[in-house]
Amino acid sequence: MRIVLGQNQYGKEQIRIVRVERGPGSHRIKDLTVSISLSGDLDDTHLGRDNSKVLVTDTQKNTVYAFAKEHGITEVEDFAILLARHFVDSQPSIHRARVRIEEYTWSAALPADPEPAGTARAVQHTFTRSGQETRTAEVVYDGAEFTVTCGLTGLRAFKTAGSEFRGFVQDRYTTLQDTADRVMTPDITARWRHSTPTGVVPADGWARAYDQTRGHMLQAFDDTYSFSQQQTLYAMGTRILEYRAELDEVRLALRNMHHFAVDLSPFGLSNDNEVFYAPDRPYGIMEGTVLRDGAAARIPTD
Amino acid sequence: MRIVLGQNQYGKEQIRIVRVERGPGSHRIKDLTVSISLSGDLDDTHLGRDNSKVLVTDTQKNTVYAFAKEHGITEVEDFAILLARHFVDSQPSIHRARVRIEEYTWSAALPADPEPAGTARAVQHTFTRSGQETRTAEVVYDGAEFTVTCGLTGLRAFKTAGSEFRGFVQDRYTTLQDTADRVMTPDITARWRHSTPTGVVPADGWARAYDQTRGHMLQAFDDTYSFSQQQTLYAMGTRILEYRAELDEVRLALRNMHHFAVDLSPFGLSNDNEVFYAPDRPYGIMEGTVLRDGAAARIPTD
Amino acid sequence: MRIVLGQNQYGKEQIRIVRVERGPGSHRIKDLTVSISLSGDLDDTHLGRDNSKVLVTDTQKNTVYAFAKEHGITEVEDFAILLARHFVDSQPSIHRARVRIEEYTWSAALPADPEPAGTARAVQHTFTRSGQETRTAEVVYDGAEFTVTCGLTGLRAFKTAGSEFRGFVQDRYTTLQDTADRVMTPDITARWRHSTPTGVVPADGWARAYDQTRGHMLQAFDDTYSFSQQQTLYAMGTRILEYRAELDEVRLALRNMHHFAVDLSPFGLSNDNEVFYAPDRPYGIMEGTVLRDGAAARIPTD
Amino acid sequence: MRIVLGQNQYGKEQIRIVRVERGPGSHRIKDLTVSISLSGDLDDTHLGRDNSKVLVTDTQKNTVYAFAKEHGITEVEDFAILLARHFVDSQPSIHRARVRIEEYTWSAALPADPEPAGTARAVQHTFTRSGQETRTAEVVYDGAEFTVTCGLTGLRAFKTAGSEFRGFVQDRYTTLQDTADRVMTPDITARWRHSTPTGVVPADGWARAYDQTRGHMLQAFDDTYSFSQQQTLYAMGTRILEYRAELDEVRLALRNMHHFAVDLSPFGLSNDNEVFYAPDRPYGIMEGTVLRDGAAARIPTD
Repeated sequence: MRIVLGQNQYGKEQIRIVRVERGPGSHRIKDLTVSISLSGDLDDTHLGRDNSKVLVTDTQKNTVYAFAKEHGITEVEDFAILLARHFVDSQPSIHRARVRIEEYTWSAALPADPEPAGTARAVQHTFTRSGQETRTAEVVYDGAEFTVTCGLTGLRAFKTAGSEFRGFVQDRYTTLQDTADRVMTPDITARWRHSTPTGVVPADGWARAYDQTRGHMLQAFDDTYSFSQQQTLYAMGTRILEYRAELDEVRLALRNMHHFAVDLSPFGLSNDNEVFYAPDRPYGIMEGTVLRDGAAARIPTD
Repeated sequence: MRIVLGQNQYGKEQIRIVRVERGPGSHRIKDLTVSISLSGDLDDTHLGRDNSKVLVTDTQKNTVYAFAKEHGITEVEDFAILLARHFVDSQPSIHRARVRIEEYTWSAALPADPEPAGTARAVQHTFTRSGQETRTAEVVYDGAEFTVTCGLTGLRAFKTAGSEFRGFVQDRYTTLQDTADRVMTPDITARWRHSTPTGVVPADGWARAYDQTRGHMLQAFDDTYSFSQQQTLYAMGTRILEYRAELDEVRLALRNMHHFAVDLSPFGLSNDNEVFYAPDRPYGIMEGTVLRDGAAARIPTD
Repeated sequence: MRIVLGQNQYGKEQIRIVRVERGPGSHRIKDLTVSISLSGDLDDTHLGRDNSKVLVTDTQKNTVYAFAKEHGITEVEDFAILLARHFVDSQPSIHRARVRIEEYTWSAALPADPEPAGTARAVQHTFTRSGQETRTAEVVYDGAEFTVTCGLTGLRAFKTAGSEFRGFVQDRYTTLQDTADRVMTPDITARWRHSTPTGVVPADGWARAYDQTRGHMLQAFDDTYSFSQQQTLYAMGTRILEYRAELDEVRLALRNMHHFAVDLSPFGLSNDNEVFYAPDRPYGIMEGTVLRDGAAARIPTD
Repeated sequence: MRIVLGQNQYGKEQIRIVRVERGPGSHRIKDLTVSISLSGDLDDTHLGRDNSKVLVTDTQKNTVYAFAKEHGITEVEDFAILLARHFVDSQPSIHRARVRIEEYTWSAALPADPEPAGTARAVQHTFTRSGQETRTAEVVYDGAEFTVTCGLTGLRAFKTAGSEFRGFVQDRYTTLQDTADRVMTPDITARWRHSTPTGVVPADGWARAYDQTRGHMLQAFDDTYSFSQQQTLYAMGTRILEYRAELDEVRLALRNMHHFAVDLSPFGLSNDNEVFYAPDRPYGIMEGTVLRDGAAARIPTD
């Protein structure tokens, strides 16, 4: 009986980095969490005592901080590409790098300030954390090709009308009733993969591309009269691909954070989908990939 | 040796309630977590077998849901007053009720829609969770007087300029250097107590009063050139009391989520307060009460 | 209108410290989170620019690490006393120190090892985190007197028999039924305060005192046929005071993590308190203080 | 341009279920979280309005509770097999079921009790949550074959000796020093896959198989003088496969929860790997698969 080493990878996860840029008119905050995973020629490290091909995770962390200074951080996609390229191209033993970034948003805390220059706040310098969802980017580089997958996580959406659910399987354990009117309350995770293998920026730039893609996804969520969450999910993915030519694949997960109408009849009260309790668990989950025909499915499924 | 019962209270915590209001032009979501604590004449329950004076926590929960239907939820302060009054006034054995509410914000997911009536989205019906901080309200009622304390928690603020820290104690264990320029990055918890014992709404309404108070607090945070977080805290509390006549007391906690400039000198790079790492723990905390002279300090300290 | 400064305090929270002691026969891990809060003569810092009385939170953190080396960490109570005394006695401006410590348990991962000395594991050197609950200690020192409050948090207990609940208030919103047999599933937080003002170690040592107190609390939980959670809480506090002469006051909070019997009747099945669902929220909470007669109640209530 | 539907699945996640078994001598608690994911013939649901092939997630949840009553819960692996088989075999439209279970441990809170029958505690009926890590099981069934993967998550291990790390890549961003003595402090996630396609119980039963596998993993962690975490990981996987003939594949992730020796030199103190601070983030992560030669790698990598 022989035992062998299979797929392996290593890296530094959850590197918290904040960069402050002080422009003439206002300051700017980039607030990221970066996670790195490398793989390559590491058999001798696993099977023996040879660490000569290991770029240690501490060095990976240092690189993130140094690159933030040397190159700045404009968009997370560019920063991830820069890092992934560096690890693979500079280390012969590293054949593949995966860089994941989460970005958190800060906005000016106060309206623009008419105070004259020379006072304490000649420039905008106070910010508050804004937004609920987290913007995500993942870049995988294998020495030849970049795979860029953007997305978001933790987007809570709530549709107060335009949703029904009927005609499903009835078996011995079914108690759910058909409903002609329900609220739909998903927590949305989305990833969209760029077709280009070269990591080229979308025509309208990463930031605007993100806003547009998010907007199309929500527009489809809003527009679609829903017969099932699956149908809504497919409509969301489809609209993204219809409007964003640079994308080939969308993977969506809708976690259905159930809102149940409270039974108020013991108190002589009606409740026409008005007062809800919202348990934390369990939740339904719908996951699906939507693809441009002929494109390979490369976003991992779970 | 005798053993006696001291202060005691009981209640239902973390009641999740969502109310959807469907107005003619648009829908509206109120998303709250309500926690209740009651105390009174409960010695026989603790010392014996008599539960005849216990309004069970399940009933408390039912009451929250039923009241949401019967009375609606306009502002959280009003809803908390309504509940607190009900528990004390309807139960002779309950002498004091404390109702705490957290409120989470939902906003229209898309711009106003010009579609003609009759389409699926004649009214605004899609929302996303917005904002980072949580609005809080606490009402305590003892049968005679209401104490209304409003506030917020989880407000992350970041000041990229206008802050120094110098001249502090040097002892054997001090390594921190004086700094003439630092970033200030508190996580802010604030509570402000209304002077009126009757639970009367502020002249401009609870919602606007909240926005104004929050705004004054942030304005002081922004305006004040900071010599210490304590001084900033005091300035924030002072400005609130100067502008909001209905308030008597402000309690603030600034958790200083440290941002440390990364030492990039090993890589031949400078770092002039530009690239930071931000550990989750430990953090500094500054807590303080600011009072209108002569007012009693009633917000509990920890 | 004048505005004044009220109660204020500051410190470093959540200082993570791990100390490894390498004894001849085995190693030992102390894993703590320390939080410090100081108060004193800090008006000039809040109202002006004078930081000359501020022992900065960074220095507080350094002190924790240095003391761990200089004095070791035997029991958390001793370590907290040492720190509290240091801050107040060494700084004229600091009049009160509160030190809180959480302790996490590690146990030998493997049975004792008979390998001969000289091999890699001549001593026990592999440990795993054990136990669910967290041991807590709080020391407050005002320059004259120490208040030592020990306890635990996060102790999940489950009683599968011996609990009923009947005869409670029936009002318009009551739907709960009397029950002659229910499971009781509290998440327990407990604090017990030592009577001695001098911080003297209990006769059997802090560690054994902790184990004994915890044991008495659970014994009462087990022994008491329960008519209400309030009655059980009082029995638990009483037993602690009866058996532990060094204590004057116990404060308990039982968070009732509800377990509801699932209604299986739609499937033609009975469910005699056998299969439960366990929502995360809401939960009931019972809080109460039990005192030695004549002792002052000094553990803060919320 | 055509758009097509790719891989999709749906289910109910995080179903909390607790089952109490009341045996003659003592009671027993099974405390689980069950997550289900189904896939099959669902194109008409995504692309149209046809829900006739959807076994709704609410029914999935009901099935979990009903099966707990009908079949009991002996071991989580058996329960997962039962559920997976039911969903696929009873629903023509469902072609694949994945059932994941987490199990939490409860132990008798007090030593065995010599009290005579007839008293309140004739049987052991008080339990406390014990253990830190979570036992996991995953069963995938496609109508023909079961894939059973067991494991654990959240096992925190700490090795106070027998670990060095040297000879790694030095590049421009490397600052880490070689170390001949370090502590190793992984948070361990492990999954081990059974070779049998029929879901047959290991010869010594699921519970003992779990304990043995966990024990071998920790024994290798303890025995191996460590030159790198990769080498330790491989040793852990290898030992499992050597001792457990029913397994074909092991996937391990070691999250290296860094413990850094505090620099105490500013205080004139040495620190020979004795006093550590332990940041929450970032952490190193080592992931790897260890396989019996010839076996397919089927545990997904991330």
